[in-house]
Amino acid sequence: MPWNTVGMLTRIDHVGIACRDLAARVVFYESVFGLTVVSMEVNEEQGVKEAMLAVAEGAPGPGVSYIQLLEPLRPDTPVGKFLERRGEGVHHVGYGVADLEASMAAAEAAGLRLIDSRPRHGSLGASIAFLHPGDIGGVLTELVQAAAGA
Amino acid sequence: MPWNTVGMLTRIDHVGIACRDLAARVVFYESVFGLTVVSMEVNEEQGVKEAMLAVAEGAPGPGVSYIQLLEPLRPDTPVGKFLERRGEGVHHVGYGVADLEASMAAAEAAGLRLIDSRPRHGSLGASIAFLHPGDIGGVLTELVQAAAGA
Repeated sequence: MPWNTVGMLTRIDHVGIACRDLAARVVFYESVFGLTVVSMEVNEEQGVKEAMLAVAEGAPGPGVSYIQLLEPLRPDTPVGKFLERRGEGVHHVGYGVADLEASMAAAEAAGLRLIDSRPRHGSLGASIAFLHPGDIGGVLTELVQAAAGA
Repeated sequence: MPWNTVGMLTRIDHVGIACRDLAARVVFYESVFGLTVVSMEVNEEQGVKEAMLAVAEGAPGPGVSYIQLLEPLRPDTPVGKFLERRGEGVHHVGYGVADLEASMAAAEAAGLRLIDSRPRHGSLGASIAFLHPGDIGGVLTELVQAAAGA
């Protein structure tokens, strides 16, 4: 692995999906696909209410992947603007990293634009940072350092 | 789990990403994110050339998740039309299932439209079928039954 990689991406932590009606979409993924909600949160800083649903064989645990359903709290939020522009669908991809600050520094060294200049609070107690989709082939990319034990 | 679920989704098998230049995008994910290419294939039936890159801590193995990079073979293909309409970015999400035919039947019973009426050949020897995004909140969704041992 070259010295300047963003650090080994350990897994697909989650796929973030923008929706207009969180409650209805949660019911859909539970009833049709058999997924399990592990948390529902309001993140005022990001202007969303969200649900994390584990995609796992058996009980959810460390290292599992999630579907993150996102409903904007207001139209003038990043997810609200996304819905206005693109409609419902995949909003971003979140990857697990071992050391978020090291990965952010490496991303910057590799010429990627950071949307977040410092770690922010994500779902399930994680620390997160977003990278600009314009440098990553149109994919809004999130780096996720899971909370200890999560 | 209700009787009519599409069957437990066992994991996020892959995120499919449409790009204009597969070779360049592969180099990007290898060099900047440290991912490992595990296969490159041309799928004439789907009109794409593609690369599967494992997102894993340590060696790729059964149950791992992948980034699937897709470049259309021609403009008049599903991925070619996607690029024309939406530009580069996330094209679909693929979930692991244990029994593809059972999951397809359950999807149909749940009122979801199948894009594929019978299983098709996917990456890494898998059997796959796509479900219509219009029934799944704008997310083109693929069901993936991995090849035995994959």
